[in-house]
Formats: sequence, structure tokens, C-alpha cells
Amino acid sequence: MSDIQSRRSGGRAARQALRAAPLTDAIRPVRAGMEGGTFKPLSQAAEKRIYQAALDAMEQIGFADAPPSGVKILTDAGAILGEDGRIRFPRALVEDMLAKANRSVTLHGRDPKHDMILSGNRVHYGTAGAAVHLVDVENNDYRECTVQDLYDAARIVDRLDNVHFLQRPMVCRDIADNFEMDLNTIYACCSGTTKHIGTSFTEPSFMKGAFEMIYEIAGGEAAYRDRPFISNSNCFVVPPMKFATESCQVMEHCVRGGMPVLLLSAGQAGATAPAPIAGAIVQAVAECLAGMVYVNAMAPGHPTIFGTWPFVSDLRTGAMSGGSGEQALLTAACAQMHHFLGLPGGAAAGIADAKMPDMQAGYEQAHSNVMAGLAGLNMVYESVGMHASLLGFCLESLIIGDDLLGQSLRCVRGIEVTEDTVSLDVIRSVCLEGPGHYLGSAQTLSLMQTEYIYPALGDRSSPKEWAELGKPDLIQKAIKRKNEILAEPSNARLDPQTDAAIRKAFRIHLPA
Amino acid sequence: MSDIQSRRSGGRAARQALRAAPLTDAIRPVRAGMEGGTFKPLSQAAEKRIYQAALDAMEQIGFADAPPSGVKILTDAGAILGEDGRIRFPRALVEDMLAKANRSVTLHGRDPKHDMILSGNRVHYGTAGAAVHLVDVENNDYRECTVQDLYDAARIVDRLDNVHFLQRPMVCRDIADNFEMDLNTIYACCSGTTKHIGTSFTEPSFMKGAFEMIYEIAGGEAAYRDRPFISNSNCFVVPPMKFATESCQVMEHCVRGGMPVLLLSAGQAGATAPAPIAGAIVQAVAECLAGMVYVNAMAPGHPTIFGTWPFVSDLRTGAMSGGSGEQALLTAACAQMHHFLGLPGGAAAGIADAKMPDMQAGYEQAHSNVMAGLAGLNMVYESVGMHASLLGFCLESLIIGDDLLGQSLRCVRGIEVTEDTVSLDVIRSVCLEGPGHYLGSAQTLSLMQTEYIYPALGDRSSPKEWAELGKPDLIQKAIKRKNEILAEPSNARLDPQTDAAIRKAFRIHLPA
Repeated sequence: MSDIQSRRSGGRAARQALRAAPLTDAIRPVRAGMEGGTFKPLSQAAEKRIYQAALDAMEQIGFADAPPSGVKILTDAGAILGEDGRIRFPRALVEDMLAKANRSVTLHGRDPKHDMILSGNRVHYGTAGAAVHLVDVENNDYRECTVQDLYDAARIVDRLDNVHFLQRPMVCRDIADNFEMDLNTIYACCSGTTKHIGTSFTEPSFMKGAFEMIYEIAGGEAAYRDRPFISNSNCFVVPPMKFATESCQVMEHCVRGGMPVLLLSAGQAGATAPAPIAGAIVQAVAECLAGMVYVNAMAPGHPTIFGTWPFVSDLRTGAMSGGSGEQALLTAACAQMHHFLGLPGGAAAGIADAKMPDMQAGYEQAHSNVMAGLAGLNMVYESVGMHASLLGFCLESLIIGDDLLGQSLRCVRGIEVTEDTVSLDVIRSVCLEGPGHYLGSAQTLSLMQTEYIYPALGDRSSPKEWAELGKPDLIQKAIKRKNEILAEPSNARLDPQTDAAIRKAFRIHLPA
Repeated sequence: MSDIQSRRSGGRAARQALRAAPLTDAIRPVRAGMEGGTFKPLSQAAEKRIYQAALDAMEQIGFADAPPSGVKILTDAGAILGEDGRIRFPRALVEDMLAKANRSVTLHGRDPKHDMILSGNRVHYGTAGAAVHLVDVENNDYRECTVQDLYDAARIVDRLDNVHFLQRPMVCRDIADNFEMDLNTIYACCSGTTKHIGTSFTEPSFMKGAFEMIYEIAGGEAAYRDRPFISNSNCFVVPPMKFATESCQVMEHCVRGGMPVLLLSAGQAGATAPAPIAGAIVQAVAECLAGMVYVNAMAPGHPTIFGTWPFVSDLRTGAMSGGSGEQALLTAACAQMHHFLGLPGGAAAGIADAKMPDMQAGYEQAHSNVMAGLAGLNMVYESVGMHASLLGFCLESLIIGDDLLGQSLRCVRGIEVTEDTVSLDVIRSVCLEGPGHYLGSAQTLSLMQTEYIYPALGDRSSPKEWAELGKPDLIQKAIKRKNEILAEPSNARLDPQTDAAIRKAFRIHLPA
């Protein structure tokens, strides 16, 4: 064995020994809340132009269809109700409310280790959406999704390091009654994970029951208000520039009940928003600013996420295309506008148009996820598991996507340039005195776990090793991992007393 | 039919009619040479620190193993040969040579429409590498690759809009004689595509024959020197900090023969380069600056590509991992250093560690390709078709990757923010006077082809349409497209007289 071979083996043994030890959270190479911001798709002049155009749209065009309660809240604050029924926002009002808005929102987990602090360029990835199908990879099929699927998704999210929150990605199609669906959604999510949960309530009249259940889970209203672990996604506008009457009423309940709200404007460029990317952003910013005024007029500083979620149409058909480069740009530019405004924000990325977790899904999800992270988006919604332009959610893709997000997060973490990392002394020593390579150097060993992230499922074997391993298939590995997780008990089950109380008060569809 | 439905149909019909017309190059939404530069992984202080550390490494550590001819060239220029046999570079020498270096390199195609101008943040994607396997998707296998495979790859590249050049991605494993392999590589590439070709010559003694063939294809030496359509990839260093003696001699022949050179430093972080990302960049920049001095000392302004290609080791095993987030960062940061130095540059991105074109391959390729493009890398090498950490090349992946690169390029193109695109007048008209949506608006129709890019193979159907279409599979579609292209005659075959002359002078392995 040559000297170099011997050193190589020594290095490898040392590395493998080190690698056997589990990583503590403190030295993991990636984690929730890493700071992005190195990617800026908009120039400074463009940021300002978009903001000014949004203010113009609010002041000159305004918004139709506010509920009577909203008309009162907004006009009391200084907005103007026109004879055409549209509410217009003087720019001084918008700027006053911006000054009152919350600049750092904490979204709590039921377990505090999952708390997320939304501020600056801190990045968090999670699920979201309202898919009506489960993508059945084993049968190459789409089928209606159920509350059991949602519970399974929650349990899987709970085990994935790079998925930081669970906003409900699927609607429970097996529950016909909408009130029962909303409450079982909360129950299934909370039973599956202690990470922060997002949901979206259907009707204002459901909120009383919903809060009853949520307060029961929290151990009382005060406990929930202290650490609100559920937020609500409010589609408070119907783009272009119309309030969604019922959703605004739901939002008012949320604000009064102490629930953080995501102000979600989900226009579709070329359909319900202007076709140019810049125009779609202008409209989304105008719409979310209107929501920001609405919320802060009710409760200054209420925890609010600025949810500019403009989507993209495939203009040939008008159908949505979430996996496009245009979508990636839209979302990243929205992140930049959040920072321009100084508001915690979220948008949609990681959506695949692909029907199955194939190569198309991989590149579609990666483009928009990494660009959102590099742009410093606080909440990257729909970042994992989402297929068919939001119509299908896939558990295997969720598991593979955790690896994808690990690599996106590594990119968000960026490059540390310090006297140590430029490595001049190490280069000198290796070249002039040392072995002529860096394999066994102390620096290499010390960085192995803290600087480099390794995939859980992703394959890095050589073609020879791959053949010897029986040519492992990514999808089969994901199915196996899914089954392993789902065979384990949930980490998040409610305590038996709480569970019994909830089951007594509400019709819970998941078996006890 | 409601009013909105009627308008929708009108819009759809108009869109479909427009879409039927082929796109001219001028209005295609993406093309070669779009300007990136919106992503900057390094701060300005970090750029400077890396440059200074590289200068220190050149001055203090220097380079071993220069050939005698190189020692003379470099010491004549002002470099210092130490008693330890290492050549050290005073920083004034480096800066003088930087002032002489070419700041805009044109890489010519045999067809001028494929010329690439490397300057500023202009981005071009293409193949590269030296894979020893063809990835046989149909049999889920790896096999040794042949000159026929290379010719097939060239013919496919010729048909793909978003693959801008062909650097030979595979070595012809069926040609035992290295001289014959080098010349047949040129022949196969030139016979398959009129795009710019990159290759890598094995030995200095082959260069005479190589130039004979190249000049024959060009129609004479003067014609080649006027429009050099073949460049050479020179692995002129063996990292860390040693000249590759024979490759330097090949490089000298290239410079004298009028051939653009890629100064390729391919260290591997944690093995042949420092493990920290910053340190790997320092060493790559130092190595390529040494090559830059070498070339410009011979021929000031010779067309040269600054090829900092640091790779990543999976530090658990020492094996290469081209699909990692660390790789994406390394490559993007190198692009930023090229701009800092003001030199046309290239690096490697788009490498999959995945063995097959699966979801892992998709996200691995997308992460690094889009980040390289956003960082404004002039030449994105290995961006398509590359698997198993460079050991396998895949024709189906090449075809799917063309769609991937289309989306990356769309992201590189970025967001135009103008008075028209902010769309205030369109929003006003749609909301206050118009139909309340943008589907049929003149703006939407006019942007359909110029602002939005559509995948060739990628699937955007709804789950229902997908089922009705028989659940099309991405890989099967790629196989079909491959077979269609390979059934067509090559667009690039040499004229019969040239072909006959070459076949008379050299042993050509492809059948006539």
C-alpha cells in the first residue's frame, strides 16, 4: 500500500467513525430560518416602481366587494368608499399602517423547537395547498384524497428535517360536511405533527367551533393566544382587486381570536392578474397591502404574513403552470418586495406540473425552491409534495423533496469567507510540506458534518456500486421510507384526555 | 354560455391560432447569451479576499512540474523559479497579464448562427465531460460508450434550442488508439452538429494530425484561424498547485495553432482542493490565473476561457458529488470571480449524481444550472445529460434537460420592469371597465410567445387530461424523441469531398 493509499484509508476510517455519531441540531449544516438574500431579481429602481404602481392601484382603482364590517373597519381607518362601491386607499393611510405592522412574526409549533421566526431574510420551507387528489405512485394513478392521507402527510412531515411547517396540502374529500372537514383537518394535522400548522377555514360561522377545538388542544384560550400554533390562510381577495366577502369575515374572526393570518392573494398571471411578471407582482402587492391595512386597522401589529402568491398561466391554454421559470421569478421577486416593505412574507414555490415524481418534477421543484430561498423568502409554501399544478399531493414526493430542500437550504446558507475558510495556510502546508492532498487534513474532517449536507434517499454511489446494490430505484426507496414512517406511532398524538374531550364535542373521522 | 365563458373561449382560440405560427429567433423568449448576474453568492469584501488569497498562493506557494518550455515562457515573463522547482508569480506579473488578457471571446460555430460571445454576464449552456459510460435507460443499465454514441449525442445537441455548444461529453471507449480516439472525437462531433465544439487532446504529439484534420474541415488554416469552431479543454494543472506537464505542452500547441483554450482547474474540495467552499475557490482562481499568465505570456489576448471548475467530494467517502448544493454554490461563486477579474469564464453545473434521469437527477441538475445562470456564468459546462457524478452520459436526459435549461434560461432572462409591464393601465381597464380578467386582453396575447417559454416534452396537462392521454411517461417520450432525431439525417455532415479527404488521411471509425 502506497503512502497516499494508506493516508486515504486513514482519512476514510476517521470520516466514517465521525459520521456514525448523530448530528446535534447546533452543528447541522442546514436548519430552519437560515438567511437568504443573495439573489435579487429586481433592481432597486424596479422595487420602487412596483411599490409606487401598487400604491397607485390602491388609490385609483381600489377594491370591490368588501363585507359591511370591512367597509366600516377600512373607512374608519381613512379609506374611501366610492360611489362605485370600491374602497380606495390614500397612500398616507397605507404608509401609516405599514408603520404599525408587525415586522417579526413568530409562528409557533406545539413543540417550541419548531418555532419559526419570520423576519429579515430568514427562510422556512413547508407544505400548503388544497389538492383534491392523492398521487398514488404505486398504481400510477390519481385518486381523491382523504383525512387519513392528510394525517399520513402530517406524520411524514413531522419526521422530515427540511420541511419546517405543515400547512394543510390536501382537502379531505371523504368528509362531505364543510364544518366537519375544517375541524377534522385541524385534528388530523395536530395528531400527526408538533410543527406549526396552517389551515384555511371555509366559513365565518365555523370559527366558533374551530376555536373551541383549538383552545382545547392548546389547554385553554390563554395558552393558545400565548403560543398560537395554528395560523389561517385567508384568500381575502378574488383577484383582480376584489375582496372575498366571506373570507374577509373569517379573517376578522381570526384576528379577534388571536390567530396569525396569511394574507393570501393568489392571482394568476394572464388570467386573473396581468400577464407581465412585473404587473402580476404590482397587483399582488396592492392586494396584500389592502389586507395589511384591513388587519392593522383592526389590531395594530397583529401577526400577519404578507402572502403575495401570484401564479402563472400557461398562456396557450389558460391552465396554471406552477413549475415554470416564470413562477420561480414571480415568487423570488415577491420575496424581494417583502423585504422592501419590511414585512414578513410568504409565497408559493416548489410546485410541479409533472403528474408523478419524475425528472420534470425534480427540476420544476428545484428551480423555484432554490430561487425563493436565495431571495430570502420567509415562508416558502407548497414547496414539497405538490404535483399537477397543485391538484395532486404525493407522499413519496414529499419524502424525496426533503432531500431536495436540504440542498436548497445548503445553497441558502451560502459561502462563509473567513481567514480560516480561504485556507491559505492549509494550501501552503499541503503543497509545501504535506501529502499533496486534503483527504485526511484536520480541516477536512472538522467540516465534514458542519459544512456538507448528505441526502437521506438520494443516491451517490458509483455505477459499479449501484449495480452491486441491485440498482436501487428512488421511488421504491421513497415508498419503503413512507411505509416505515407510517408504521411508527405518531410523535404528536393528543393526550388521551384532550382527545376524548374533542371526540365527545366533535365528530372526528380518524379512528381513535 | 355565460359572457365570461364566451370571452374565455375567444381568448383561447386566439391564443391557439397565434401559437401555431413558428417562433422566429428574434422573439423567442430565451436564447444563448442572455445576461445573468442577479445572484451574487459572495459579498464584495469576499470577492476581494478570495482574489488576494489567490495572489498570495501564487506568490508564496507557487506551482510545481511545469514543462521546460513552460518554465522558459513563465520566467521570461517575470515568474520566479525557486530552488524547490516551483514557479512563483509576483503579483505585479499577474496584474500586468490581466491587463493583456482577452475580455471578450467569441466561440464560433461552423454555422455562424451558433457563434457565442463570452463577455459580461452572458450565459451559455452546453455539454462537457469525459463520461466512460452511456446510460442505457431502456435497459436500466450502464455500458461503455462508443464513437457512435458521441455522434448521436452531437446530432441531438444540434436539434436542441437550449443547448448552445457541444463539448465532447463522452470518450470513445471503442477506439483503443488514443490518437485515433482524439481525431474520431472531432470527426464525430463535427459530423453531428454545426454548433461550437470543445474537445480535449491527449498528447502533444497528436496535435499536428489534429490540426491537419481541423484545417481540412475548415477549408484551410486561415479559415480556421478566422473562425475557430473547435476549442480545447486544457487540464493544465493537477490540483493542488502543480502544472500538468503534458497538458501544458498540448496547450502551447493550441495557442500556436490559433485554438481557443479553456484553462481547466478541476480540483475536488476535500480531496485535491481545500474542503471549505471559499478555499476551493481560492485555489481554483490561483491555478487559473497561473494558466492565464502562461497563455498571455505566449500570445497576449489569446482567446481563453477561465475555467475554475472546483468539484465537491462527498466527505464521507471521498467520492465526487456533482449534484450537491455545495457544487451549485462553488460554481456560482466562480462565475462571480470571473466578473471580478473581468475574464470570460466557465465552470461545471448540471451534474447529476443520480444514475438515471429520475427526480433526483432533475433537482440536482436544476439547482446548479439555474444558480450558474443567475450568477452570469459565460459557459455552463456539463449542464445537460450528465449522470453518476460525471461517469455516465444519457441521451434521454439530454433531451429532457433541454426543457430544464429552457426554464433556467427563462429565470436568467429575469423580469422586465417598464411602464408597460407594471400594467397599471391594464389593471385599471380590466377592473373598472373590462371583463374582470386578463385572458383575452391584447397585452396577454402579445406576451404569450415572447415572455413565456413552453416545454417541449414536459407535461402540463391536468390529471384528467393526463389519464385521457394514456398517462404519458416522461422517459418514454424522451426515448421516442431520441429515436425521431436519430432517424433524421444529420444537418452537419461534412461535404463529400472533405469527408473523402479526411477518410483517406485518417482512420475514421464511423461508417461513411
